[in-house]
Amino acid sequence: MSYEELARMVLKGDRRSIARAITLIENNHPKTQQMMSQLYRHGGNAHIIGVTGPGGCGKSTLVGKLVKEFRHKNKTVGVIAVDPSSPFTGGAFLGDRIRMQELSADEGVFIRSMATRNNLGGLARATKDAVCVLDASGKDVIIVETVGAGQSEVDIIKVAHTILVVLAPGLGDEIQAIKAGIMEIGDIFVVNKADRENADRAVIDIRTMLEMNSGKQEWKPVVVKTIAIEGKGVSQLVEKIEEHRKYLEKGAFASKRREQVETEFFEVLRQKIEESFLNDLKKKREFDKILEKILAREVDPYTAAENVIAKKLKNNKD
Amino acid sequence: MSYEELARMVLKGDRRSIARAITLIENNHPKTQQMMSQLYRHGGNAHIIGVTGPGGCGKSTLVGKLVKEFRHKNKTVGVIAVDPSSPFTGGAFLGDRIRMQELSADEGVFIRSMATRNNLGGLARATKDAVCVLDASGKDVIIVETVGAGQSEVDIIKVAHTILVVLAPGLGDEIQAIKAGIMEIGDIFVVNKADRENADRAVIDIRTMLEMNSGKQEWKPVVVKTIAIEGKGVSQLVEKIEEHRKYLEKGAFASKRREQVETEFFEVLRQKIEESFLNDLKKKREFDKILEKILAREVDPYTAAENVIAKKLKNNKD
Repeated sequence: MSYEELARMVLKGDRRSIARAITLIENNHPKTQQMMSQLYRHGGNAHIIGVTGPGGCGKSTLVGKLVKEFRHKNKTVGVIAVDPSSPFTGGAFLGDRIRMQELSADEGVFIRSMATRNNLGGLARATKDAVCVLDASGKDVIIVETVGAGQSEVDIIKVAHTILVVLAPGLGDEIQAIKAGIMEIGDIFVVNKADRENADRAVIDIRTMLEMNSGKQEWKPVVVKTIAIEGKGVSQLVEKIEEHRKYLEKGAFASKRREQVETEFFEVLRQKIEESFLNDLKKKREFDKILEKILAREVDPYTAAENVIAKKLKNNKD
Repeated sequence: MSYEELARMVLKGDRRSIARAITLIENNHPKTQQMMSQLYRHGGNAHIIGVTGPGGCGKSTLVGKLVKEFRHKNKTVGVIAVDPSSPFTGGAFLGDRIRMQELSADEGVFIRSMATRNNLGGLARATKDAVCVLDASGKDVIIVETVGAGQSEVDIIKVAHTILVVLAPGLGDEIQAIKAGIMEIGDIFVVNKADRENADRAVIDIRTMLEMNSGKQEWKPVVVKTIAIEGKGVSQLVEKIEEHRKYLEKGAFASKRREQVETEFFEVLRQKIEESFLNDLKKKREFDKILEKILAREVDPYTAAENVIAKKLKNNKD
């Protein structure tokens, strides 16, 4: 199948083609870009929800329940579960996948997990492209779930319009979350496993923290209690998600999207420069000569870099 | 003072000029590059020693004793102490600085601490330039000390020819060190505070780990016990450092330097592209137009990036 055909099938919402398209992205296949160019124009309609939080807080279970709730509302849903820490998708996550198979029987749902192949930067890039594929395929809601709560998760989750930070009482998660800079990015805070002791304490702690942080933003982050495994609080959570979407549609969407597009454009620009310019340079004999000169201290790295850039621009002149 | 004059004074080893030169670097002063170009040609003679390890292992005390030992051997010494975690140099580190003032009275010693101003990448870059200044100033030995043991420290410390990984018994440091990928980069492992219980256990643990890691490299990392605060083991440690230098001079220096120069050259090249191309682009009205087009889904970020690069090359044609 050509990439044009594949893109066409993705636009029709064909599940197998969506899966293939994401595999191309993961493998950084040479045709990825042409396919993405074609798909990109058809995106921009989905509501992208990010779900993050430390391990053990019940994120995956919650995501499963969210999918069901959105399906009840007749919305189609895509899920990208990202695990930056693991080159494989194993462990607890595998269990969640099995649980999710039940959802996978539904044609209105597409679930995919992604893990680190090369580097974290590459994973963030690939995740954004995978979201773009689901978006172009016509999914109403796309959930990006990241396992863990570090800086890389923050980078990945920023693709979302609405960010859920999930915590559980008694994990000491609250402090972890602040450390990772997650409190600043959350639109909705979920205290999951709310039947545990200290759940109310956790809610109070989060609210206190939010009050300290509250700046001039119009949306005041809310805190929702859930017991995901029993499905409790999930419909209230979806209500809050809808409220946030409505708030965004009143105006904040524009600035948020512009920011995201700017970030994405620069990412791609950097990547392209890296590919077309730096990697190309490494292959050339000229490159060894430059290194030799620097090693011999005949030239310094700054001047050498300027020369290379000037020469590159000059060469393209002819 | 012009930058040429400043560079000339640095080459003479003038301490005040060295300090001024490093301040220019830290502030990313416009004249930095011209100065570095001039200085770079005169470097390449110092033995650069990296000292890293987790907090609380007694690194700074050890560095102080190393300086004294090298001075006894009539070698001039420069110290760059890097603290990536703190925008200021405070806390325990301040205490170390006061302790080091005693050394600062000696004209053959130059000590400077550097901390994060903007980003970690910038700090690594600034550290390398500061090392280059000390190198050009004629210091025989340059010690780069980093506080902490994360990936950023690994990046910074790679400027060194000989890397010391300092650990202390009973801190659980061993595991931390493996996690941070520090075990792979150490040439000499120092078990400091060797009068503590479990010191021999730590030595055995490190040796076991090194044996598991031992690949085809010719230099087999050694383990040295010290009690830095009493000066015990320090002369043996300096002997090992000298041994490593002799090993490098037999051939490994060439490949190590080439690798370092390659890394540095690419760093500078990336930085220059960022400065001259991307930052420049952000200022232009054209940039807003591109973002608008991407937002309107008239073009995808990939194609837009390619267009920008092509246009940049074309513009320089005229």
